[in-house]
Amino acid sequence: MNQKELDKLSVNAIRATCIDVVNKAKSGHPGMALGSAPIVYTLFSKHLVASPEDPMWFNRDRFVLSAGHASSLLYTMLHLCGYKVSLDDLKSFRQLGSLTPGHPEFKHTQGVDATSGPLGQGIAQAVGMAIAERAVAAQYPQGKQVCSHYTYVLCGDGCLQEGLSQEAISLAGHQKLNKLILFYDSNAVTLDGGLDLSFSENVKNRFKASEWNVLEVNDGNDLDAIDEAIAKAKTSKSKPTLIIVHTVIGYGSEKQGTCKVHGNPLGEEDGAKAKAFYGYNYPAFEIPSEVYDNFKNSFVKRGKEAYKAYQANYASWKSAHARAALTLERAISGDVDAYFKKEPKFAPENNDSSRVASGKALNELYNRIPFLMGGSADVAGSVMTKINDGVNFTPRSPKGRNVNWGIREFAMASAVNGMCLHGGLKGYCGAFLVFSDYMKSAIRMSALSKLPAIYLFSHDSIAVGEDGPTHQPIEHLAMLRSIPNVNVIRPCDARETYAAWELAVRSKETPTALILSRQNLPLLASKYKEVEKGAYIISKEGKRLDVTLLATGSEVALAIEAQKKLHEEGIEARVVSMPSWFLFEKQDKAYKDSVLGVSKDKVFAVEMLSSFGWYKYADHVMGIDTFGTSAPAKDAIKSFDFTADHLVKFVKENLK
Amino acid sequence: MNQKELDKLSVNAIRATCIDVVNKAKSGHPGMALGSAPIVYTLFSKHLVASPEDPMWFNRDRFVLSAGHASSLLYTMLHLCGYKVSLDDLKSFRQLGSLTPGHPEFKHTQGVDATSGPLGQGIAQAVGMAIAERAVAAQYPQGKQVCSHYTYVLCGDGCLQEGLSQEAISLAGHQKLNKLILFYDSNAVTLDGGLDLSFSENVKNRFKASEWNVLEVNDGNDLDAIDEAIAKAKTSKSKPTLIIVHTVIGYGSEKQGTCKVHGNPLGEEDGAKAKAFYGYNYPAFEIPSEVYDNFKNSFVKRGKEAYKAYQANYASWKSAHARAALTLERAISGDVDAYFKKEPKFAPENNDSSRVASGKALNELYNRIPFLMGGSADVAGSVMTKINDGVNFTPRSPKGRNVNWGIREFAMASAVNGMCLHGGLKGYCGAFLVFSDYMKSAIRMSALSKLPAIYLFSHDSIAVGEDGPTHQPIEHLAMLRSIPNVNVIRPCDARETYAAWELAVRSKETPTALILSRQNLPLLASKYKEVEKGAYIISKEGKRLDVTLLATGSEVALAIEAQKKLHEEGIEARVVSMPSWFLFEKQDKAYKDSVLGVSKDKVFAVEMLSSFGWYKYADHVMGIDTFGTSAPAKDAIKSFDFTADHLVKFVKENLK
Repeated sequence: MNQKELDKLSVNAIRATCIDVVNKAKSGHPGMALGSAPIVYTLFSKHLVASPEDPMWFNRDRFVLSAGHASSLLYTMLHLCGYKVSLDDLKSFRQLGSLTPGHPEFKHTQGVDATSGPLGQGIAQAVGMAIAERAVAAQYPQGKQVCSHYTYVLCGDGCLQEGLSQEAISLAGHQKLNKLILFYDSNAVTLDGGLDLSFSENVKNRFKASEWNVLEVNDGNDLDAIDEAIAKAKTSKSKPTLIIVHTVIGYGSEKQGTCKVHGNPLGEEDGAKAKAFYGYNYPAFEIPSEVYDNFKNSFVKRGKEAYKAYQANYASWKSAHARAALTLERAISGDVDAYFKKEPKFAPENNDSSRVASGKALNELYNRIPFLMGGSADVAGSVMTKINDGVNFTPRSPKGRNVNWGIREFAMASAVNGMCLHGGLKGYCGAFLVFSDYMKSAIRMSALSKLPAIYLFSHDSIAVGEDGPTHQPIEHLAMLRSIPNVNVIRPCDARETYAAWELAVRSKETPTALILSRQNLPLLASKYKEVEKGAYIISKEGKRLDVTLLATGSEVALAIEAQKKLHEEGIEARVVSMPSWFLFEKQDKAYKDSVLGVSKDKVFAVEMLSSFGWYKYADHVMGIDTFGTSAPAKDAIKSFDFTADHLVKFVKENLK
Repeated sequence: MNQKELDKLSVNAIRATCIDVVNKAKSGHPGMALGSAPIVYTLFSKHLVASPEDPMWFNRDRFVLSAGHASSLLYTMLHLCGYKVSLDDLKSFRQLGSLTPGHPEFKHTQGVDATSGPLGQGIAQAVGMAIAERAVAAQYPQGKQVCSHYTYVLCGDGCLQEGLSQEAISLAGHQKLNKLILFYDSNAVTLDGGLDLSFSENVKNRFKASEWNVLEVNDGNDLDAIDEAIAKAKTSKSKPTLIIVHTVIGYGSEKQGTCKVHGNPLGEEDGAKAKAFYGYNYPAFEIPSEVYDNFKNSFVKRGKEAYKAYQANYASWKSAHARAALTLERAISGDVDAYFKKEPKFAPENNDSSRVASGKALNELYNRIPFLMGGSADVAGSVMTKINDGVNFTPRSPKGRNVNWGIREFAMASAVNGMCLHGGLKGYCGAFLVFSDYMKSAIRMSALSKLPAIYLFSHDSIAVGEDGPTHQPIEHLAMLRSIPNVNVIRPCDARETYAAWELAVRSKETPTALILSRQNLPLLASKYKEVEKGAYIISKEGKRLDVTLLATGSEVALAIEAQKKLHEEGIEARVVSMPSWFLFEKQDKAYKDSVLGVSKDKVFAVEMLSSFGWYKYADHVMGIDTFGTSAPAKDAIKSFDFTADHLVKFVKENLK
């Protein structure tokens, strides 16, 4: 069999297996898988450099299936390429506990470089990966020896209709990410019907306007043309490349070219017809040995050699650059222990707003941790992500670790996820808390993918003041706290802010959201080490314990003020600072009970945002359950009765 | 004074007033206001048709300040144009309770057509308005006599960097919304510095690729050129028009052209210098009478005449089309009473999934209510927004009320807000519940702007099944419920679904989110009329009341099953169906207590999503506080122990 025949057989085997996988599960999206098979086959067999023997190999090419619904195709490829995805795994596609869930999941299945499915996010994550690739290479002496690879993404119309993708594309073009290659499986069909129902853009020109190269393959079954396009894309010197490949959705099915084949199994009959159409005559889930051999001789062999060469090269690089290697290894493992041993001790003593304290902590950490990298969505001066003497990450200064993400909150968060997925960097990003709304799905993705992304959210209550209700967060802490595996920390003063930062950079599988005030906060008797417990007694009660005041952030000082006034009125209160529900929930019952001290009907929570969620800990909540108001901060706060006197009144009324 | 001199004086007066307004408040964003003044002046004085004597006049041109931070400019224009914004109102810019809050707020200040500030949303809302304008005109006989106006938007770089704007632009181009005119105040500066820090797109070409006309004005102070561009844009027959106007941020300030003038008052000294630079010699807040007269003779006069002509014309249109006029007036007031008097009674009896029931309810309402209009984000067949024999809204069939929003959730939601802002339509849109994440900020905007947008969210739990954790909502109900003024309704069967729909279309100032199951739901002893109370007893306890089971949606049937089993074990339970927390909270304490029946420690909540928030009502919550899993629905449900037996066990353990 010559290579051409082998290629054809392999593509047929991939398509047939996708049909089988989806048919067996009675669930899945065969449409795009069948259309895209030649693209992914060509990429894996002829270009992609990765190593099944070390699937997390740092210098592998990355491949992101942004159109995550075509997961059957990815799993089939991983199987053929020698990853730990067996035929049995393929047969348990979308079944409980299988290695082959409905959409690809990072850290769940070997060889999956990103969790994907929520449309557009794969592209934005890939942009983050490509940024990471360039940044890491630039940050080390002769860094291209240790980090120099391509990042490939496959998307369909869904991803490109999402606004997120334009943000990501625009960012990639601006950063001239020439090693980013995006395949656009253009099949002119979406779930509801023809693409022309909802879309009439000239995608080619949109990408060109965003400073991309654009290549086009008119026949999605023309392997040579796809191969040539990839080869050409790889030579790009200053622009990312879009390869538009015109395909037929559900290729081979009776329903090919229609939306009917988008999200439904072909079924036995149509599946058999499709296989006959391909001229493929093997029983279900039987793949000819020639196909396995083909991948062994292409993908596996290329990967093995490259991996071996890398290892040899890495050894010599390491001996030449021992210190750099130490840093790189820490960066890859995410280990920051060494950076907290340094003097002066990492903790300040002043009355800064927590955003200012955060800015100082960030500057200190930025200097200590050479792989901390990030920036804000055009609010560096407000969220305090400015790095003194920081160098901007630009095509001309790829060493710079300060990123101007632009006014693109969603892409920013997704790209930070991409940086975390890539590894070798600790990524952070900042915005006003109210605009966490624009980033919600990306934050969820951090949490789901177990990525230690760091989110800085300042302007954390109606104390934003004059900007008014459009810019004043109310329900946003509830939104963030409700996401599983997100550590939301709202520090009460500068000291807690520093502690929160330490926890954030130490985290390995949990994203952290630091919630920061615009206004100054007095330094309290806060305890640096206690922040990791989520909540602790910051101001003890008198001789007796009548009530516990539970507060976070700017309201801790308010609670302490109220505590004094309550004492004067004969009520003995304890004040608990509770920067993180997430961390508090991780404590044992004994600790929790000891901190709260009283039954729930005597616990009062105070937070200048929505009361939503607080009733888990307190029967009485002083919060704000309406939208905010435009006024100078002190007037806004007063208008919502966030005063010690009002808290005293609230406690007295509810203790009756 | 000739007109040219008068124009110049007017622009100077506008700029000077903006300086004064922001200086007095010591807060605000003068930069764009000063740059954009000539654009807005030209628009208002020469083109915009609206009427201060009837600010909500249905056929006025709409103007959306997408760059809401330039609010000082809008308020100044409204003052000069004779709206109820006095000099005193301008002097209390951004103060507590003033008519001139930090960002423009719909229904708060006369003449403000949209709440704006969160970047990108003004553009998308304007797209919705332009859709509404065309749709309303098409839906009535000789409809252009009653609805025929332009929609203008002003944005800056912030809006255009947001991905949302690309979704909106793409949708507008696809729909050939030729009466939509977008001004791009291009000043090449953002908050953090020069635009080139983060942006290198060719905006002109991006818009062209999205099927827009693009005009360009090189000198933002050239009133004639702006005037000509607007005149030309108004003649477009088949495309929306972008007018790029190159301006100087903070024009006249010492800091003009830099980011320093973006978000800070000029101060007295620089303000005085700017006024001197303009050659404008009036004390603060003093506006020469010639300027007022100029607006009286232009904007006000034009508006008055147009309004008068419209009224006369409307009277004759109404007498010729009495029935249509009745419908239109109902549409504008949002009154749907008449459509619920019809037989057969609006209520089904079957075991449909709530998404299917919703689809049937929608079809019925679509036929009854001629101004109900919407669609889904390419999931019509899944969220059940398909209208039998429905006509698609397209440039060729503007009468069609079925909208293919495309895979653009955020723009979809914002555009529905725009339809609501415009009036004359009841707008709805649909997506999977998990992708409410992409729409969060727009949903918040509906709530803040008091718009009765209708959101259909199907696939409402881990019972999504095979698609897995990326597609299974967990914390999404908490997210939606935590937004002030959003009525989240999760019906337990087909009957409650119909009731929820009736509440949704009857709503006038509150958006509604209908939360719909993928799986079938048995018809229970639900009560149509009780849904409006938010919660009610759906299955009474036996002779004694031991515990109350609080459930929503698909879990109500589960609770009823558990109730029987508990009875067998000697525990008498009441089951409460609680489709809407929002509506329940509106009931008086006596009703609430009567429904719950027991103290909180004996209330058990059951919902197959996050427990977050439920502790307000129940001390014991059976929920899911981790991410979901990819498996057939029944396996996924079982793996999370959502069975009647487990609920029985849970109750027994916690009653101890």
